[in-house]
Amino acid sequence: MSIATKSARKATVTTPSDREIRIERIFDAPRDRVWRAHTDPKLLAQWWGRGNKLVIEKYELERGGHWRFVEHSDQGVHGFEGRFREVTPQDRIVQTFEWDGMPGHTVVETLELQDLGDGRTRVVATSLFFTTEERDGMLQSGMEQGLDQSYEALDRLLATMR
Amino acid sequence: MSIATKSARKATVTTPSDREIRIERIFDAPRDRVWRAHTDPKLLAQWWGRGNKLVIEKYELERGGHWRFVEHSDQGVHGFEGRFREVTPQDRIVQTFEWDGMPGHTVVETLELQDLGDGRTRVVATSLFFTTEERDGMLQSGMEQGLDQSYEALDRLLATMR
Repeated sequence: MSIATKSARKATVTTPSDREIRIERIFDAPRDRVWRAHTDPKLLAQWWGRGNKLVIEKYELERGGHWRFVEHSDQGVHGFEGRFREVTPQDRIVQTFEWDGMPGHTVVETLELQDLGDGRTRVVATSLFFTTEERDGMLQSGMEQGLDQSYEALDRLLATMR
Repeated sequence: MSIATKSARKATVTTPSDREIRIERIFDAPRDRVWRAHTDPKLLAQWWGRGNKLVIEKYELERGGHWRFVEHSDQGVHGFEGRFREVTPQDRIVQTFEWDGMPGHTVVETLELQDLGDGRTRVVATSLFFTTEERDGMLQSGMEQGLDQSYEALDRLLATMR
């Protein structure tokens, strides 16, 4: 379950249960750099929206804090938002996610950064949906293509960071 | 699974699946009155918080709108919030719900009002949780007692409405 892209490195997308999607991807950068790219709003804005313009309206990175991003692309303006459940620096973020187009169809996203010890970092992102139908809707939405575009933008960003 | 109260009328609480709680309660008032008590912020504030002071910080009753209530009781100050998925006047509201104490542990609540045709209305409220553990936590939280207190306050409010 992965699609061909121009990049040599693709995310591995699997479905560990009937309400989950698991994404795994290795980045050529140490964990601290990958953490900063995931948690500094100025850096996040450069890759999260597939390289499109991303306006970060709110980003309160702490338990109970809220976040809201608005992506401006050729396909229109799309808002995304959620709330942080858990923030463990360098290691793990658990947060909710929903797209304005399907309000209240909340997803729980768990992000884990694993230091591979050789200057590389494995990112594992797991999404838990309320129902299988919502999970399948996400899989059929072009998610994998968008994901690869975002992660390629992240590759480029990481290469510029020190 | 129901507790004794001073009221003659108790809510019926059941668990139709391992991630759901279903609440059923009949009110001695026509459906329009019950709908207004559930959707007019000034009326909601009089019963939702078990009779305690309730500050309605946000109440955008439409698909995609947000809501946020803060209850002030002897046990402290507790915030609750969520977003509307669906609003069908007189009939049905689907919304998310979360308590500030467990941020991101979102619940989907479906409220249905059934006109019994004799001046009474049946309210059916179903909650869907991400996990069985979260569902069981809610059941063990004193939810039923709080529910009966809120619904008794609603009985009193409905008796004053025309």
